[in-house]
Amino acid sequence: MKISSLVTKTSKTIPGDELASNAQLLIKAGYLHKEMAGVYAYLPLGLMVIEKIKTIVRQEMNAIGGQELLMSTLQPRELWEITDRWDDKKVDNWFKTKLNNGTELGVGLTHEEPVVNALKDYITSYKDLPKKVYQIQQKYRNELRAKSGLLRGREFIMKDMYSFSIDQAQHDIQYEEIVAAYLKIYQRLGLGDLTFRTYASGGIFTNKFSDEFQFISPIGEDTIFIDEKLKVGVNKEVFNDDNLKKMGLHKNNLVEKRAVEVGNTFHLDSKYSDALGMYYHDQTGQKKSVIMGSYGIGISRLMGVITEHFSDEKGLVWPDQLAPFLCYLTFIADNDQQIKKTEKLYQDLTSLHIGVIYDDRFSRPAEKFADCDLLGIPIRIVINQKTIDDDQYEIKLRTKKELVYFNYQELLQYLKKKGE
Amino acid sequence: MKISSLVTKTSKTIPGDELASNAQLLIKAGYLHKEMAGVYAYLPLGLMVIEKIKTIVRQEMNAIGGQELLMSTLQPRELWEITDRWDDKKVDNWFKTKLNNGTELGVGLTHEEPVVNALKDYITSYKDLPKKVYQIQQKYRNELRAKSGLLRGREFIMKDMYSFSIDQAQHDIQYEEIVAAYLKIYQRLGLGDLTFRTYASGGIFTNKFSDEFQFISPIGEDTIFIDEKLKVGVNKEVFNDDNLKKMGLHKNNLVEKRAVEVGNTFHLDSKYSDALGMYYHDQTGQKKSVIMGSYGIGISRLMGVITEHFSDEKGLVWPDQLAPFLCYLTFIADNDQQIKKTEKLYQDLTSLHIGVIYDDRFSRPAEKFADCDLLGIPIRIVINQKTIDDDQYEIKLRTKKELVYFNYQELLQYLKKKGE
Repeated sequence: MKISSLVTKTSKTIPGDELASNAQLLIKAGYLHKEMAGVYAYLPLGLMVIEKIKTIVRQEMNAIGGQELLMSTLQPRELWEITDRWDDKKVDNWFKTKLNNGTELGVGLTHEEPVVNALKDYITSYKDLPKKVYQIQQKYRNELRAKSGLLRGREFIMKDMYSFSIDQAQHDIQYEEIVAAYLKIYQRLGLGDLTFRTYASGGIFTNKFSDEFQFISPIGEDTIFIDEKLKVGVNKEVFNDDNLKKMGLHKNNLVEKRAVEVGNTFHLDSKYSDALGMYYHDQTGQKKSVIMGSYGIGISRLMGVITEHFSDEKGLVWPDQLAPFLCYLTFIADNDQQIKKTEKLYQDLTSLHIGVIYDDRFSRPAEKFADCDLLGIPIRIVINQKTIDDDQYEIKLRTKKELVYFNYQELLQYLKKKGE
Repeated sequence: MKISSLVTKTSKTIPGDELASNAQLLIKAGYLHKEMAGVYAYLPLGLMVIEKIKTIVRQEMNAIGGQELLMSTLQPRELWEITDRWDDKKVDNWFKTKLNNGTELGVGLTHEEPVVNALKDYITSYKDLPKKVYQIQQKYRNELRAKSGLLRGREFIMKDMYSFSIDQAQHDIQYEEIVAAYLKIYQRLGLGDLTFRTYASGGIFTNKFSDEFQFISPIGEDTIFIDEKLKVGVNKEVFNDDNLKKMGLHKNNLVEKRAVEVGNTFHLDSKYSDALGMYYHDQTGQKKSVIMGSYGIGISRLMGVITEHFSDEKGLVWPDQLAPFLCYLTFIADNDQQIKKTEKLYQDLTSLHIGVIYDDRFSRPAEKFADCDLLGIPIRIVINQKTIDDDQYEIKLRTKKELVYFNYQELLQYLKKKGE
């Protein structure tokens, strides 16, 4: 894409009404527009990053047999009354709305009840189990405060998976398979080293701990204690001697950290399946409870975490696999030779399906480079007199200071490998 | 995918609370779950079809330089008061909700105002124009009646594009480019022959007609008059002698038809851009109005139209390019030889990326074939004794009665071509 045709531009000013540094930076770079506190629109570059995160998450969910579906945002009250999650005194962050005839509806904040209700006619025999379904969609939560940008939205993008099993043993196998997929996702996003599987309170349905996936970061709202050797964490809320014994952890090996939750997995037992009448018949024809789990990853929150973690004083820094474009390409002098050479390379990269944004503006190089840095594009390619005279292409990585020079063949080789 | 691992199943009974034949059929086949009147969940097979429609629409929007973004569902009241579209007396199909502090919010029914507001800092010079942006997302409309299944939803999936131009001449070029892309989309969806670009009332902002894209069908809610030779239609609402003269059409060549609207395009002039303060500076530095258009295609409505149009008494009939799987594969007798042969072909097709659903159940062939028909899979491949003895694979197309036989190499050749 040519930068002149891109609908957004970068800006030098920090938006005054935005407190969170992730959203400030994404707004300055033209990735995001703030609609109101906790509600953002994804402009083209921002949506490209969201789609790349979604693709990684989707691939790992599909790889373990997850089947994607899409539940509705509008929710009938009756479904949530069955499980006593309709009343605002019980669930205090519903957005609610009304049909023209006055009937109250919920605006989807999670989907256990509707998923069970939609699938209960299909899951009736032990032969139908185990199963895993998931969706990626907007969720709506009526948060009192929403000052953390993409880290805590009133409207946000989430992947939620639900598993169904014949018993606890089958459930445990599914649960661990999903946990393994989560750890793979954080690795692929570039967050693996600092993400800890963390014991957290299990809720009221089971005596098991739930798991949080906590990313160590000073911006985090949570306090956890980590064992770096075992690569495991404990949320402060369950940090006591009794629990540590159950977990097989030793206080002396645990270090306190701030962290931000980038995923969670819950054991639900048969709380929702029983309530909504999803049962299965076993080999002997006996009616039995379906054991469930639920598993969430905040896609837009991940974008916020990645923004804060990788960015520097010059702007955004995207890992290759998440950048809207792998390369930024421009010329130094606006002479015919350089422009022709640049356009030729732009064509070549485009036909090789290597993501490239071509800065075709006649601005000062320093201004262009500042934009490239603010946008966070991983590889900057500059066409200058050396390119014309000596077939030397100037390369600079967003994360490095040095300039590197490649001839044309080396350059293509290098980019093809990077783009894999 | 193996049918035994698919989370849904077909059903023999028509859902009692569903009146629309498109939704009845999609529910029977396990593509859709009804949440409430006008609100559906897309189960895995249904979501696959939606995604295929989205991909075609997205490709054509990108091909004309459209840039995809994603606006928010939650809408601040102030934005809509500026254009006088907040009051329920002015716009009677809003869903509204409230923040915990009592602030009223809208639940997105269209996005002219927020799109202009988000882009007005970026569109400030004649150099920034023309531009086109679009999104694909859920819209919410508080319809009094919602009895037409996917044809009129309270929650539905829509592609909406917005164009920005320096003047009417530039706008007209953009407008016609988008109309051409729309016609291409209907062709690719298999609806081209029966879709007519149709004059409709232009709204209050311009003296131009708007265009509807009307698909001729007895299920349609609209009455139009078509000139089959010119491939053009006139909506009843603008059907009078004066208008026909302006359109250059002759009453004698026009035939009355029922039709369902599958897209529309509007000239907005500078109604929204002026109101929300989006202006540009021309070459001489003069501040000028931005001319806009808006362009909608209902993705889920298209799924409903395609369902009704192609289906027959046996069930769904998907065109190759929209089917969740191109092939249905099964064996006749549950003997080792046939099962092995079937699994081998299943592996081969999967590794060739040819979409296939493998019916691995030991049911009666007649039952399996009925399922294949209800699901609407284009190509049925059956492994039987002839396959084992003579390398003959039995093929039946969903839209044909005859059986055809191919040897293994011919079969792969045929499917590769079909899958292109």
